[in-house]
Amino acid sequence: MRGDLFNLEEERLGEEIKKRGAKRVLLQLPDGLKPLAARLASIVERAGASVIISGEPCYGACDVALAEAKELNADLIIHYGHTMMLRDLDIPTIYFEAHAEIPVEEAVRKAIDLLKPWRRIGLATTVQHVKKLEAARRILSSAGKEVHVGNASSILHPGQVLGCDYTNARAISQNVEAFLFVGGGRFHPLGLALTTMKPVVAADPFEGRAYSLDADARRILRQRWAEIEEARKAETYGVIIGLKPGQKRLREAFRVKNKIEEAGKKAYLISLREITDQMLRNFREFEAYINTACPRISIDEAAAFRQPVLTLKEAYVMLGEISWEKLLEKGII
Amino acid sequence: MRGDLFNLEEERLGEEIKKRGAKRVLLQLPDGLKPLAARLASIVERAGASVIISGEPCYGACDVALAEAKELNADLIIHYGHTMMLRDLDIPTIYFEAHAEIPVEEAVRKAIDLLKPWRRIGLATTVQHVKKLEAARRILSSAGKEVHVGNASSILHPGQVLGCDYTNARAISQNVEAFLFVGGGRFHPLGLALTTMKPVVAADPFEGRAYSLDADARRILRQRWAEIEEARKAETYGVIIGLKPGQKRLREAFRVKNKIEEAGKKAYLISLREITDQMLRNFREFEAYINTACPRISIDEAAAFRQPVLTLKEAYVMLGEISWEKLLEKGII
Repeated sequence: MRGDLFNLEEERLGEEIKKRGAKRVLLQLPDGLKPLAARLASIVERAGASVIISGEPCYGACDVALAEAKELNADLIIHYGHTMMLRDLDIPTIYFEAHAEIPVEEAVRKAIDLLKPWRRIGLATTVQHVKKLEAARRILSSAGKEVHVGNASSILHPGQVLGCDYTNARAISQNVEAFLFVGGGRFHPLGLALTTMKPVVAADPFEGRAYSLDADARRILRQRWAEIEEARKAETYGVIIGLKPGQKRLREAFRVKNKIEEAGKKAYLISLREITDQMLRNFREFEAYINTACPRISIDEAAAFRQPVLTLKEAYVMLGEISWEKLLEKGII
Repeated sequence: MRGDLFNLEEERLGEEIKKRGAKRVLLQLPDGLKPLAARLASIVERAGASVIISGEPCYGACDVALAEAKELNADLIIHYGHTMMLRDLDIPTIYFEAHAEIPVEEAVRKAIDLLKPWRRIGLATTVQHVKKLEAARRILSSAGKEVHVGNASSILHPGQVLGCDYTNARAISQNVEAFLFVGGGRFHPLGLALTTMKPVVAADPFEGRAYSLDADARRILRQRWAEIEEARKAETYGVIIGLKPGQKRLREAFRVKNKIEEAGKKAYLISLREITDQMLRNFREFEAYINTACPRISIDEAAAFRQPVLTLKEAYVMLGEISWEKLLEKGII
């Protein structure tokens, strides 16, 4: 991922450091932008602050390095690549969205073919491409499509989706027959398909190509149902609490633990920062897990886990509090 | 690792919870004891507290889950498997050393043969076997050895060593020709060999066997020197700051960064909780790393890293502040 593909707002970075008189900055980047860390750190230093680059993984705006900043006595967090999601943080945090500078037209034109069966199209994208959504809309309109862009979230740009927040897409889902997602990687368009249960085509401007997510989404739905059935057989559950600021749902964890115990089974709470099979493998007593942290870990990493790792919503299907059909209707993410 | 191999002090666990009126306990175990997590968690619950099992890795007493306990609003940490190392922690922490119940005699008897060339023997062990050291001493004495046990540390039991603290062994090193280490795994006896530069024989009571560490130690010393030479060629360094409470050496990190810059090269600070090649691979600009956290990560995981990851002491050899020979004399850990 090259630096010139993204607008890193290097000037604003220096200005913010000076304006705030920051003394020690924690610089946080998603892994894809970490190759640019030293370049950005140098800007912070030249603006008069010392800087520590967070080497920890960073998967989203849920994942602000608050505890880390406190441990390092940083007085400012610079968070790249995501939209502000958490407010009133203990440590001042400035977000740099890192918009992509790459044109989207070629990929969107290639998507037109795949969108042939449908006329009413919903548009969605990540923060990196929100400024290019208008260009995508024009191409779709020229091709005779009726284009819808959701604007139902107080924190997201119009049309923007997160891996765990498809509010903007849901808001228009009933008005469209299919979605066009503009952006790189399968992660976001897959979530869009699983949430809206509509056909999704992705236009990837980095690779200049378009593809359908339908087969992936169908496969994952089959898997999720199988995981729920498998988890049903367990006698002892681990209920995972995520330690990342926007993933910590303590009350929900205690609640689902109680529900499992009411059903006559055993449940134990486990706290984890990075939820991986390697971490879970240390335990021997748990036959299935309920993950109250990021639901995408359960869904996207299922193949890597040796035991079922249900999302909170799936746990309530297992416990009979909601039907699978109803969950599909509401969206599994 | 079976529960009945270790004294988990289950009664004291329940009593401590009740006595302190703990409301929410964070239970922290090294990976080897995690299979017993649910059993211990149940004791905490029966004593009237809610309990969260830390799923995070825990490699030593340097690694108390303070930040985690704060994030989870726990009012007590129960830390298994290590001796108290950090004092005056923000959150009350009770240590359970988890002494091994297994006899050491068979393994020590097998070690006698390997110790034949030497008469004056230093004894060392981990906290798990400190109570069995007397039994080991008797066997050595009966075999005609002069036995020395170091007692120079204010925090460790006589003869006890940590992966990063061989104070007790160093204190007697000049009086002995070789060391006998009693305990499982190569990690501690290898550190003993690298620190004292004396022949080390390990008696492993879990496997009932004895073996020499000399070839391993020699191989590692050759590797370390090669890493220093390789790191010397770099122009841009990453200086790693460990986020674990007993591994965070901010001042030393800033200091070595300045020294590198004084030498006309570039250096950037990086904070990490778990220092793995996967984490470092996200960066592209750093040709070598200086690790100010646990030195054992540099030494024991060297094969896993694609770039040289020097310890702080090795960095000062690279920078010419101390000679390699002098470092070997003082001990590389």
